[in-house]
Amino acid sequence: MNHFQIFGLRTNLIKPGDTLLDHIFTALQNQNLFFKEHDILILAESAVATAQGRVTPLSGIIPSDHARKIAKQYDIDPALAEIVISESDVIVGGIPGFLLSIKSGHLLPNAGVDGSNAPEGYVTLLPSDPDALARNLRMTILEKTGFHIAVLIVDSRTHPMRYGSGGVAIACSGIPAVIDERGKHDLFGRELKVTRRAIADNLASAAELIMGESNEQIPAALIRGFDIEFGDYEGIELISPDECLFIGSLKKAYVNPP
Amino acid sequence: MNHFQIFGLRTNLIKPGDTLLDHIFTALQNQNLFFKEHDILILAESAVATAQGRVTPLSGIIPSDHARKIAKQYDIDPALAEIVISESDVIVGGIPGFLLSIKSGHLLPNAGVDGSNAPEGYVTLLPSDPDALARNLRMTILEKTGFHIAVLIVDSRTHPMRYGSGGVAIACSGIPAVIDERGKHDLFGRELKVTRRAIADNLASAAELIMGESNEQIPAALIRGFDIEFGDYEGIELISPDECLFIGSLKKAYVNPP
Repeated sequence: MNHFQIFGLRTNLIKPGDTLLDHIFTALQNQNLFFKEHDILILAESAVATAQGRVTPLSGIIPSDHARKIAKQYDIDPALAEIVISESDVIVGGIPGFLLSIKSGHLLPNAGVDGSNAPEGYVTLLPSDPDALARNLRMTILEKTGFHIAVLIVDSRTHPMRYGSGGVAIACSGIPAVIDERGKHDLFGRELKVTRRAIADNLASAAELIMGESNEQIPAALIRGFDIEFGDYEGIELISPDECLFIGSLKKAYVNPP
Repeated sequence: MNHFQIFGLRTNLIKPGDTLLDHIFTALQNQNLFFKEHDILILAESAVATAQGRVTPLSGIIPSDHARKIAKQYDIDPALAEIVISESDVIVGGIPGFLLSIKSGHLLPNAGVDGSNAPEGYVTLLPSDPDALARNLRMTILEKTGFHIAVLIVDSRTHPMRYGSGGVAIACSGIPAVIDERGKHDLFGRELKVTRRAIADNLASAAELIMGESNEQIPAALIRGFDIEFGDYEGIELISPDECLFIGSLKKAYVNPP
């Protein structure tokens, strides 16, 4: 089918320790929506992290000298710098206000540590084990409803040299995150060279359009009618810095300028 | 309204010199769809470029020594390298198979020069003056139908260190490309620090989900019911490399390693 729909799910305020699915089922009911076979449920990582209790106060954090140095260099709160460093596998660098981290193979600002939509003086961390959580939610929904639903946990990212944040999936369960079209043919019957479609990231971006980042309290979305193969697909494959057009190129460009 | 829909528009094969809007109106009619007030029309840049005749044969191109050197370094066709260089404002670098270009402030692979969905031995270039074209199409649709439709011309991009391509808008007319939410408040009443939402890029990614990159002949999509302010918004604001989290960070990281 050549058409699909996106619904925003407005929930009550999600608090640490809440059962996220209860919020989702309530939101669906309030909007007179009910899961259908092959719906795709999109959850904002901030809501997931909050329910998991992945919320930390900045007060009481004692920044290391290293954290203080980085905080000064990039003009961020030393306590935040300390948390970002502890959450990051690598700090690649930064610009004023942000550090660029690598965490579990993901390249992201501040290792996903975020002050917005956390209580005053607190920050939310990335969800712990989002893959396992997405799979668990998918299975729970299957048990409760009998429907095969895909579950994505999504975060915001920017594209290089562009303003504004879009969506990426940090977990994807029940559909393939990426569809590899290499081997398919183009309009003129030629084999496509490199064409992988970032299905999960595009679904995340579509959901971001309706989820909102401010006080809309729409931390989830339901995508209905999207034509994709459902099954026991799990996880998101990431690439190494050197395989990456941006990082690979820039590294070469800056390390050995042309 | 908390819900919107995306329709793929299946057209006939678009040829150089074709009037793109004729293809769109025919596709709408064939699918029993008709423009409604505040629909958003998404057009793939490859279809736009083809209709504009921005299609070039690789044969007969005589690569410069510089192009041959770069082609060898990055393992691409010397004729393609020559065209990419001529289409680029700057070649930032590359990885095997791709050059990373800056063209009119856009950072993109191969300056948008693309062999897929072009006739054998030909490549398509980026559309010329996409902003003017998007505005022109918007105005023509307003004349023909009386409806205020937004028009986006979209291309594919990858995110750093992620597999698969998503959408970005290279032209956006009739709605704001980016919504600046700084000054809005979060769930806890705190002012959001940096939150710009890449509306046009997210709409592009949503459309990519249905447009497909291979032989589906769906070079356009219609987005209906998306809640945004329509008006005489034009163009896409881009940021400089140093403002960019990725490039700014990596430049610092590689030029003066920590």
